[in-house]
Amino acid sequence: MMILPLFFIFCLFSSSHAAVQDFCVGDLAAPQGPAGYSCKDPSKVTVNDFVFSGLGIPGNTSNLIKAALTPAFAAQFPGVNGLGISLVRLDMAPGGVVPFHTHPGGSEILIVVQGTIFAGFVSLANTVYSKTLNKGDVIVFPQGLLHFQVNAGGTLATAFASFSSQSPGLQIVDYALFGNNLPTELVAATTFLDAAQIIKLKRAFGGTG
Amino acid sequence: MMILPLFFIFCLFSSSHAAVQDFCVGDLAAPQGPAGYSCKDPSKVTVNDFVFSGLGIPGNTSNLIKAALTPAFAAQFPGVNGLGISLVRLDMAPGGVVPFHTHPGGSEILIVVQGTIFAGFVSLANTVYSKTLNKGDVIVFPQGLLHFQVNAGGTLATAFASFSSQSPGLQIVDYALFGNNLPTELVAATTFLDAAQIIKLKRAFGGTG
Amino acid sequence: MMILPLFFIFCLFSSSHAAVQDFCVGDLAAPQGPAGYSCKDPSKVTVNDFVFSGLGIPGNTSNLIKAALTPAFAAQFPGVNGLGISLVRLDMAPGGVVPFHTHPGGSEILIVVQGTIFAGFVSLANTVYSKTLNKGDVIVFPQGLLHFQVNAGGTLATAFASFSSQSPGLQIVDYALFGNNLPTELVAATTFLDAAQIIKLKRAFGGTG
Amino acid sequence: MMILPLFFIFCLFSSSHAAVQDFCVGDLAAPQGPAGYSCKDPSKVTVNDFVFSGLGIPGNTSNLIKAALTPAFAAQFPGVNGLGISLVRLDMAPGGVVPFHTHPGGSEILIVVQGTIFAGFVSLANTVYSKTLNKGDVIVFPQGLLHFQVNAGGTLATAFASFSSQSPGLQIVDYALFGNNLPTELVAATTFLDAAQIIKLKRAFGGTG
Amino acid sequence: MMILPLFFIFCLFSSSHAAVQDFCVGDLAAPQGPAGYSCKDPSKVTVNDFVFSGLGIPGNTSNLIKAALTPAFAAQFPGVNGLGISLVRLDMAPGGVVPFHTHPGGSEILIVVQGTIFAGFVSLANTVYSKTLNKGDVIVFPQGLLHFQVNAGGTLATAFASFSSQSPGLQIVDYALFGNNLPTELVAATTFLDAAQIIKLKRAFGGTG
Amino acid sequence: MMILPLFFIFCLFSSSHAAVQDFCVGDLAAPQGPAGYSCKDPSKVTVNDFVFSGLGIPGNTSNLIKAALTPAFAAQFPGVNGLGISLVRLDMAPGGVVPFHTHPGGSEILIVVQGTIFAGFVSLANTVYSKTLNKGDVIVFPQGLLHFQVNAGGTLATAFASFSSQSPGLQIVDYALFGNNLPTELVAATTFLDAAQIIKLKRAFGGTG
Repeated sequence: MMILPLFFIFCLFSSSHAAVQDFCVGDLAAPQGPAGYSCKDPSKVTVNDFVFSGLGIPGNTSNLIKAALTPAFAAQFPGVNGLGISLVRLDMAPGGVVPFHTHPGGSEILIVVQGTIFAGFVSLANTVYSKTLNKGDVIVFPQGLLHFQVNAGGTLATAFASFSSQSPGLQIVDYALFGNNLPTELVAATTFLDAAQIIKLKRAFGGTG
Repeated sequence: MMILPLFFIFCLFSSSHAAVQDFCVGDLAAPQGPAGYSCKDPSKVTVNDFVFSGLGIPGNTSNLIKAALTPAFAAQFPGVNGLGISLVRLDMAPGGVVPFHTHPGGSEILIVVQGTIFAGFVSLANTVYSKTLNKGDVIVFPQGLLHFQVNAGGTLATAFASFSSQSPGLQIVDYALFGNNLPTELVAATTFLDAAQIIKLKRAFGGTG
Repeated sequence: MMILPLFFIFCLFSSSHAAVQDFCVGDLAAPQGPAGYSCKDPSKVTVNDFVFSGLGIPGNTSNLIKAALTPAFAAQFPGVNGLGISLVRLDMAPGGVVPFHTHPGGSEILIVVQGTIFAGFVSLANTVYSKTLNKGDVIVFPQGLLHFQVNAGGTLATAFASFSSQSPGLQIVDYALFGNNLPTELVAATTFLDAAQIIKLKRAFGGTG
Repeated sequence: MMILPLFFIFCLFSSSHAAVQDFCVGDLAAPQGPAGYSCKDPSKVTVNDFVFSGLGIPGNTSNLIKAALTPAFAAQFPGVNGLGISLVRLDMAPGGVVPFHTHPGGSEILIVVQGTIFAGFVSLANTVYSKTLNKGDVIVFPQGLLHFQVNAGGTLATAFASFSSQSPGLQIVDYALFGNNLPTELVAATTFLDAAQIIKLKRAFGGTG
Repeated sequence: MMILPLFFIFCLFSSSHAAVQDFCVGDLAAPQGPAGYSCKDPSKVTVNDFVFSGLGIPGNTSNLIKAALTPAFAAQFPGVNGLGISLVRLDMAPGGVVPFHTHPGGSEILIVVQGTIFAGFVSLANTVYSKTLNKGDVIVFPQGLLHFQVNAGGTLATAFASFSSQSPGLQIVDYALFGNNLPTELVAATTFLDAAQIIKLKRAFGGTG
Repeated sequence: MMILPLFFIFCLFSSSHAAVQDFCVGDLAAPQGPAGYSCKDPSKVTVNDFVFSGLGIPGNTSNLIKAALTPAFAAQFPGVNGLGISLVRLDMAPGGVVPFHTHPGGSEILIVVQGTIFAGFVSLANTVYSKTLNKGDVIVFPQGLLHFQVNAGGTLATAFASFSSQSPGLQIVDYALFGNNLPTELVAATTFLDAAQIIKLKRAFGGTG
């Protein structure tokens, strides 16, 4: 059987990884560009670059918001670099909440796998779309819109959320307003909140100024 | 307090849904374009357009492959239209398998939520990247590459997979080769399979010719 | 000179507008898709579809925020449909402010043409980047990030801002939190604001619940 | 063998064309959007929608430029709608020329299949990249840059050129300047050409004014 | 109040800039890729990377075209790298003109802030769309199409133009044809201009050959 | 004549290649990113970077499939890097075949320039679209779908195929299933092929396991 000539042909395509760009595992130590991380040398890529472990156990919800987010974004999971997809695990203890936030870089699809979550988003026309989600329910949050999740039951609630970006980002309103050095009077001017309220939340979120 | 003038300003942006394009819930009855479905009239959109239910229970795995795929793509879940994201539930009974297939339209990120799955893909350099995944393990399949999943344990295995497309598509090799009217001799010529093998599988997959 | 044969050749390309897609003036009355409005019949397009007037005079700043935004987005200026660009005029009286907001659909580049504006944004790493801008200074706000503008002088300030989208959208945090029917307790839970503060701002922004 | 249950599973994906968007054959009679034509009803699509004939014979080069361009763009070949690819056949008699032109919508890759063509483009740094191409030689013209082709031999030259767009467009400088109703003095002011030269070329290219 | 645990959670997202890609200030000294410049080390980014000054004063119009273009593209303003937006200031003395040109990389939206400008573009169907623009008028030029601007008044005219690209590029027809080493006979063959005309303009634009 | 001042203006745009990004010739030795290769130093780019030779002669079809593919993808032709276009020459001796395969990264447009080719693809709805193509016939294969080509005549057949990607990739089903170290039993489980068939083809395609 004529094996070798066939191989000769195929080698045009497969002899060098440089010929293909089916994946680009991120090299976190190399420079980034607007499209993501530089690619790790393909000869050093193993299946472990495409596998991320640790989302099988709940995050630690012993905190103010009684919730934990465990991301598998490009920075934690370089195998998704350049692929336009990523994942996060969300755990919420009873009373847990993910405060109003946005993901500037992508849309989100969330599925509840345990417990009950009340979730919603505010559209650009300022309409609120919200609903109580039970196990197996899915909700989609369009890119960049303000949204929230609240544990609506008495038990731990868990969800997995995927994003249409390997680096969707997360901007929590509270944290952006009260967790840095924005002067109180500037926050007041740009949010219409009372100074006392701002100072109170700056203390909670570690802000200065 | 000066409420009305403020409203006047904001109305420039919010008075009409035509001014915004934060979402485009698919109108399955209207014409499609290359970017997806036409948008449903925003005034008729409700939260239920953004919520998909039914992924909380296992699909029926009483079939040849002992597996079930339950999609929430744009055609089933019009809320994701235009958002570049979608989801599918995968259930695999013991012995279950998702045969070699591709998703031409997007990359996939899969998380195992129950049981054990052995999964892998073949790169363009013809390298096999495969691993046994337990609960909480995540794997990513780069866009368009051939990949498979096999139940690697003795119990039901369940996973959720997301895609970087609202309509990633699914092309199962067996089904494409043996489930339609491709003539047997043509399949033989283009796959190097023996005619007897092709005829046998055409019977299994319902193909003719 | 052989004019006609030359024309015959060129007609392959120019006889029908259907052959080209150099522009797609939005037909606001036709269905939208994920990529924007349907195209107006090219035979009815005139130069006026590509020209937008009225940004030569200041907007009315006699309102709570002492500021006015006059957009030339696709909904107001259908000529930009499909072109990925749009424009807004910003006027701010002394004391004027554009409260914290995002544009989910695009990045913004703003040039001050009159007066002095203090502007800034908060990055995903929660760093504040802010500066006082004088006439001729330009600032860029990356897509989807929270940002603000404040009149930093004693006179009217004017700026023009462009976006990398024909429909960048505008989501003002105050308006999203306090200008709709989100229940007070839900806002409290998802923002950590005091109920009294929320009720006060709901009154200012016209919210219910 | 369990055929039916398997089919049941697959039907989730294949029973309805609405579930997939592997292609979007253009419906030239329906509205266009920014991303291209509306999709033809998939149930009416045949293989002939994906096949274009007629590029096997030379175009008629009995004209001023002694050249012929025969396009298979989306407007002529609706099967490429939404796929970001198209093709044109170029024939050039001895002395034939394709005058300086651009394709605003895409890059071009051209292969000479007969004869000899001298081709080149001007970069944004105003460098000329040009070369004589023989049968089997390939040249690429980056998107939107001014370029030209000239028959550099004594025989008919033929090439096939592909584009990274289903509707790359064609704008020939001569035709844009001299083939419409731009007033002569305006052309003079915006090109620094002498009026006599403009008038002469307006006559050749059918321009008025 | 439980501050620290909250911080622990948020640190998953914010402790490292590598985790986010909200901006990618261009490092002009590092290699470029197809999507733009490599990103500057985020720890060295300051607000000044996002601010560009110097567009407050008119450019020098004491030249042949009596016009000046002052760009804030990625090469001058690295803060826009990867953001798909940029800006240019245009000044035109009485009699000033921006000759026919294209921007291969993006669409343009231009607002007149002083004086009167007559501007237009030629479509792929060879239709001229042109109009006299006064202060506050906006015009959009679709990507890659030939267009021009002429001072239509007796005073200095100023405009700001934005682009749907951080590096839209500029290709002026005169400069591409007459400002380099294209041989006169080649320009003649590919433009139908008379040799004398070409030689005259080559002298004006500094071309050789 | 005022040459110098004009030059001064233009120099703002053309003095530095860093100011433009009209092309990005791939530097195969530098790191890749998700968008392609790093750009070669523009000062070292010559016309030869944009020209690829060697597609004028048939590839060697003395092999098992009696066919030869000669690619001009980014890895062989760095001038197309970042431009979203590439080309391949296909030669098929009598009896030649290109087995079922996909291009994960792009759509394909193929023109027959010699001989007769029977070609087809399988859609996501599992419909076969196939036809015999003669000289001058064109077929388009939508992105990622399984397709094949067979020499349908008694003479050498030649075609040129272009792709909507500079690195479309090639995944041949036979090679992916039988040309690597996938265990026979795994291939059997994920394809329903008989073990004997798999072993036979593993021998032909050089697979192990």
